[in-house]
Amino acid sequence: MGKPVDLIEVWRGDLLECMHQGHAVVCDEAGQITHAWGDPETVIYSRSSCKMIQALPLVESGAADAYGLTEKQLALSCASHNGSAIHVDAVNAWMKDIGLGESDFRCGPQVPGDVDVRDALIRADEKPCRIHNNCSGKHSGFLTLTQHLKAGPDYTHIDHPVQIACKAAFEETTQETSPTYGIDGCSAPNFAGTVHGLARSMAFYASAHTRSDTRSKAAARLASAMMAYPEMVAGETRACTNLMRAMNGKVAVKTGAEGVFIAIIPEKRIGVALKITDGATRASEAAIAAILVKLGVLDAAHPTAKSLMAPDIRNWDGLVIGRINPVSALI
Amino acid sequence: MGKPVDLIEVWRGDLLECMHQGHAVVCDEAGQITHAWGDPETVIYSRSSCKMIQALPLVESGAADAYGLTEKQLALSCASHNGSAIHVDAVNAWMKDIGLGESDFRCGPQVPGDVDVRDALIRADEKPCRIHNNCSGKHSGFLTLTQHLKAGPDYTHIDHPVQIACKAAFEETTQETSPTYGIDGCSAPNFAGTVHGLARSMAFYASAHTRSDTRSKAAARLASAMMAYPEMVAGETRACTNLMRAMNGKVAVKTGAEGVFIAIIPEKRIGVALKITDGATRASEAAIAAILVKLGVLDAAHPTAKSLMAPDIRNWDGLVIGRINPVSALI
Repeated sequence: MGKPVDLIEVWRGDLLECMHQGHAVVCDEAGQITHAWGDPETVIYSRSSCKMIQALPLVESGAADAYGLTEKQLALSCASHNGSAIHVDAVNAWMKDIGLGESDFRCGPQVPGDVDVRDALIRADEKPCRIHNNCSGKHSGFLTLTQHLKAGPDYTHIDHPVQIACKAAFEETTQETSPTYGIDGCSAPNFAGTVHGLARSMAFYASAHTRSDTRSKAAARLASAMMAYPEMVAGETRACTNLMRAMNGKVAVKTGAEGVFIAIIPEKRIGVALKITDGATRASEAAIAAILVKLGVLDAAHPTAKSLMAPDIRNWDGLVIGRINPVSALI
Repeated sequence: MGKPVDLIEVWRGDLLECMHQGHAVVCDEAGQITHAWGDPETVIYSRSSCKMIQALPLVESGAADAYGLTEKQLALSCASHNGSAIHVDAVNAWMKDIGLGESDFRCGPQVPGDVDVRDALIRADEKPCRIHNNCSGKHSGFLTLTQHLKAGPDYTHIDHPVQIACKAAFEETTQETSPTYGIDGCSAPNFAGTVHGLARSMAFYASAHTRSDTRSKAAARLASAMMAYPEMVAGETRACTNLMRAMNGKVAVKTGAEGVFIAIIPEKRIGVALKITDGATRASEAAIAAILVKLGVLDAAHPTAKSLMAPDIRNWDGLVIGRINPVSALI
C-alpha cells in the first residue's frame, strides 16, 4: 500500500475532527497520468467501481445482442442499485426472459438501500432476497453470459468461463497483471490492480467511442448505457445517479465499496480512479466531486456538487454543526 | 492535528484493503503516559466518550441524591443507548418522576439503534422521538441538574449553568484549558481537548475510589454505575456493553462518535483514550479491545475480544472474505 495523502477534511465547529487520506489518478487515453494525488501504483480492489469491466464480456461475446438486452439492461448490469422497484422489477423481468429465477443467483440476500422498499418488507414481515442485492444487475449479466456460453451454474467460481473472461477484460483494459483477487460482497471475484491501472481502464472506456474494434464498441455501449440511465446504475438520492444527472449524461461515474470511485469522461477521453485509504464513502464522494469540478465537467455551483463536495454536517435536530471539505490540493 | 500512526488493518483475501490511523494514550493516576501511539497532544472532540464527565456535575452538585437517582439511572446518564425498551422506559419513568416530558429534551429525534424497536416503529407507522435519541439518558441528567439548580430550560446553551459546570468538570479532570467546543449530535456542547487530557481524566476516574473528596466520590460512583449496569450504557450487541461484561464489570469503557473510545481501569488506576483519525467505529472498537488485551484486563480468548479485535468480515452470503487486525505495535 503506497503512501496516501490527505484528501478530505471533516470539520466540527472550528476544529478539524477527522481526516481522510487516499490516492487518486487522472489518466489520458494513452495511459499517461495527467493528475495524481498519493501513490498511483498502490494496489487496491476496485470493488463495484469496475462493474463496467465485469460487464464487458457480456457485450463483446455477443451475449447481450443474442438475448436482445436493452440499453437499460446494460446500465443495470453495471449497477450497485438501491433495490428500488425499478431495479427489482427489471431484474425479475430479465430473469423471466431467460428462464431463470432468484435461486440461480449466487449473491446473498441484502437489505435494500431504498428505505421505502426496506420499510415495506418490514411491514409485510418479509425478508429481503437475492434480487434485492445491490449487485443483482451484474449477476443478471453474469447469468446471461453463462447461458450464452452454455457454462455451469457456479458462475462466481474463479475458474468459471464468466470469471475467466472478467479477469481477461480487467487485465487487458488496466494493462496490468492482477496480482490477486478477493471475494466481493456479492461473492464474485474482485481482481486487484493499481489505482493507475483502474484509471487507465477508465480512459479506455472514455476513448472507446473513437475506435471500432469489438471490445471498444462494447465498452462505448456500456458507458453510454450508464450515462443514459443513471437511475438504473444506483437510484434516487445516490451519488452516482445524481452526479451523472448533474453532468447531463456526459460523464459516467461509479462508486465501489471501501472508498473507491471512478469516472469516465468521453468528451475529454480521460479516466479517473480514486481510493480512500480508510474506506469511507463520505470521502470518496467528496473527492470524486472535487476532481470532476477541477476537470471542468461538473459545475461547482450545481446542488449535487455542493452537497457531495462540501456538504454541511447536520445533527439529529437538523442543526448545521460542521462541514466536509476537500483539501486545497484537490480544488 | 498531530501525526497519526497506523493502528487497524482491514484485509480482504491476501490484500490489505484499508488502513485506519489514529492516536492512543494510556495514562496513570499521576497523569503520566505509560503507553502512546501517534501524538498524545492531538486535539480532538471526545464526543460521547466523555459522558461520565458530563454527568459529574449531576452527582457532585448533590442533584442525583436530591432526586434519589439510582445506580441504574447514573449508568443511563453516561449512556449512548440503543433506544431499546429498557432505555426508553427508564427515561420515561425518570421524566415522570421529575415532572418533565419529551418536549423538554433538547436532543433531536433519532432512529433507535435497536432494530426490533426501529421495525416496531415502522410497522406502527410511528416516527422516532427525542427519547429514542442515544443521548436521552445524558439529557435526563442535564434536565435533573437544571431543575436542581432552578435554571432555565435551554440547558444545551453554552452559557447555561449545566454547561458551565460540564466545562469546568472537563477542564479540571483533563487538567487542560479546552481550546474550543463543537455542537454534538444531540445539540449539547462538546469540549475539545487532547487525547492525553482525555486519558488523564479517565485515570482520575480510575483512581477516584482511592480518594474521599466530593468530586472523586462522584467520579467513582459514575464509573461503578457503568460497570454495574453495562446494558444501560449501550445495549445488547453493542461493543461497550459486551466489553464491560467480558471484563466482569471491572473496567468501564465508552465509545464516542467519529472513532473515539475510552477505558477506566480502577484495579490499575489507569485511563485509556484513543481517536481514529478517519472516525471509523470498526477501528476504534478493534483498537480499544487490543489495548485492553495488552493491558491484561481483557482475555484475548474471550468471544467479545475476538469479535471486536480481529473480526472476520463476512459478505451478504455469510462467506468469510476478510478480517480486521490491529497492527503489531498494538498487540
